[in-house]
Amino acid sequence: MAKAWHLMKRPQGKPTHDDVTLKDIDLPALEDGMIHVKNDWISVDPYMRVRMDDQESYFESFQLEKPMDGGAVGTVVASKADGFEEGDKVLHFGGWRDEAVVQAKTAQKLPDLGVDYFHFLSTLGLTGGTAWFGLMDVASAKEGDVVFVSAAAGAVGSMVVQFAKAKGMTVIGSAGGADKCDYVKSIGADACIDYKAGPIIKGLHKALQEIGEKGIDVYFDNVGRDHLDAAIAHAKQNARIAMCGFIDGINGEVAYPFKYLALAIGKRIRMEGFIFTDFQARMPEFYQEVVPMMLSGKVTTRETVHEGIESTFDAFLGLFEGANTGKMLVKI
Amino acid sequence: MAKAWHLMKRPQGKPTHDDVTLKDIDLPALEDGMIHVKNDWISVDPYMRVRMDDQESYFESFQLEKPMDGGAVGTVVASKADGFEEGDKVLHFGGWRDEAVVQAKTAQKLPDLGVDYFHFLSTLGLTGGTAWFGLMDVASAKEGDVVFVSAAAGAVGSMVVQFAKAKGMTVIGSAGGADKCDYVKSIGADACIDYKAGPIIKGLHKALQEIGEKGIDVYFDNVGRDHLDAAIAHAKQNARIAMCGFIDGINGEVAYPFKYLALAIGKRIRMEGFIFTDFQARMPEFYQEVVPMMLSGKVTTRETVHEGIESTFDAFLGLFEGANTGKMLVKI
Repeated sequence: MAKAWHLMKRPQGKPTHDDVTLKDIDLPALEDGMIHVKNDWISVDPYMRVRMDDQESYFESFQLEKPMDGGAVGTVVASKADGFEEGDKVLHFGGWRDEAVVQAKTAQKLPDLGVDYFHFLSTLGLTGGTAWFGLMDVASAKEGDVVFVSAAAGAVGSMVVQFAKAKGMTVIGSAGGADKCDYVKSIGADACIDYKAGPIIKGLHKALQEIGEKGIDVYFDNVGRDHLDAAIAHAKQNARIAMCGFIDGINGEVAYPFKYLALAIGKRIRMEGFIFTDFQARMPEFYQEVVPMMLSGKVTTRETVHEGIESTFDAFLGLFEGANTGKMLVKI
Repeated sequence: MAKAWHLMKRPQGKPTHDDVTLKDIDLPALEDGMIHVKNDWISVDPYMRVRMDDQESYFESFQLEKPMDGGAVGTVVASKADGFEEGDKVLHFGGWRDEAVVQAKTAQKLPDLGVDYFHFLSTLGLTGGTAWFGLMDVASAKEGDVVFVSAAAGAVGSMVVQFAKAKGMTVIGSAGGADKCDYVKSIGADACIDYKAGPIIKGLHKALQEIGEKGIDVYFDNVGRDHLDAAIAHAKQNARIAMCGFIDGINGEVAYPFKYLALAIGKRIRMEGFIFTDFQARMPEFYQEVVPMMLSGKVTTRETVHEGIESTFDAFLGLFEGANTGKMLVKI
């Protein structure tokens, strides 16, 4: 019988196992225009925390006592939809479960680009797309720029590091701990700041000295707060900041006392928030740039993989504990 | 004998009379390429506070025990420069004094546009130019937008209100006190929030309800801090924020605990700092738009005028005490 993770109550702050449960579900009948998919891979992402709240947000809230959903890659096992056949690989939004019956029009049949299909949940999906369009489009990054990226060992951050290096930029990452910093440097970063070792503003100053630069042109922000304030303090004239994440804020923590925001005026800093879906229509141009980088080894990927549908919630909780290096995935 | 205001020590926090002194000066000899100007009007502006500090900034620091400078409009009394004659009206940067000898190439001969010359220090100068380009260019404001502007009774703010109304926008201003709010409404604002009457975030919510709008498209930020946080909280999708001033920050006050900055991500808010001088080359296009508005009475101006060179520092201090409605000027 199919199983799905249900939201049983809305988390206060950090989610716990009391908020969710894995339960058997009856799959709907397969009607015209639908496909039955056996999931191979499930994605867990920080934005899902927002969906657990009952508040106005860009993301639709999960309903109480109903299955949650999210990105997944699976294999079609039955189809009543034109253009989909048994055996097709699809990207769809019936995640948080092992099997799903979904409207075919909400699914994307995946092309064989010569790379594993799970990449469409990460490097070739939301993760890589967020990194690419945030860096190249929102932050207008260009060859020669000095780019700072926080959570640089994380899913999006590790892609930003590699895309920036592939495009001829100088990169400073930040990550929690020496091991993660080693990884960040191993994928090409010119310097990495261990934010657990001291105030990030001092770390950034030191990293800039180390690489002989006076400031940053671009900050790809995955965390907000002290990192964002430090980036503004160390920004050059006309710097651009792509605001992508504010993970502490998501779990309802307190306000952050920004000290340097006023410097954005004299430095003419541009800060801009964005959401991947704004760029989804441009994914073909993205595949064209990034698949060759993957095939040539210029861009490498790293996943933290949990096994089995039962492990999905632990994988999700791990996102808020720094337990992942690279994209967090669940293999069913 | 000519007199000039000198910076005697660098202010700690808010400037005081102990930091400056008005002293006689010897004017330099009038050499080729120079003009001798008798100042008619002197401008005092918040950015001058930044110049009193000895720190890296976009603005050049004032030197200790030397005359300060800034914008002024005066009449040429002697010229050794081509294109300048006795009696010409000029805009130049030999302010904070009653007479100046300056390089003619740093002065701008003022055209007779049918309006009083002091307007080149305000509506047709830094003040109006800041309002115009911040609103129309940095914040990409357009007809039909809901515009929020702080310090709306101030020099720049009162121009933003009027330019926005002249361009078919809905305007909410904020100002300190009922009298200032009356003024803000008298120049066309659809609503005005008295920030002294309660938290600005509640005031903005109420003002939006009052005018039947769900949020703001544009925020022209003259103050930062609680106003900026409230603007983000009440911004619509794809809102734009022109960051123009952060007056509390200038006097070295403490960090502000932002609560809503993370919302900029999902709302795709663009925040951008700017400085008037970036747009100075485009002043002719600005005169073309704004002078007709002034002549037709669509845009009215209001100045707070101090009389005499001796009053210049009090005029400057007044900027930080909310003592001005409209542009603060000193008439010599």
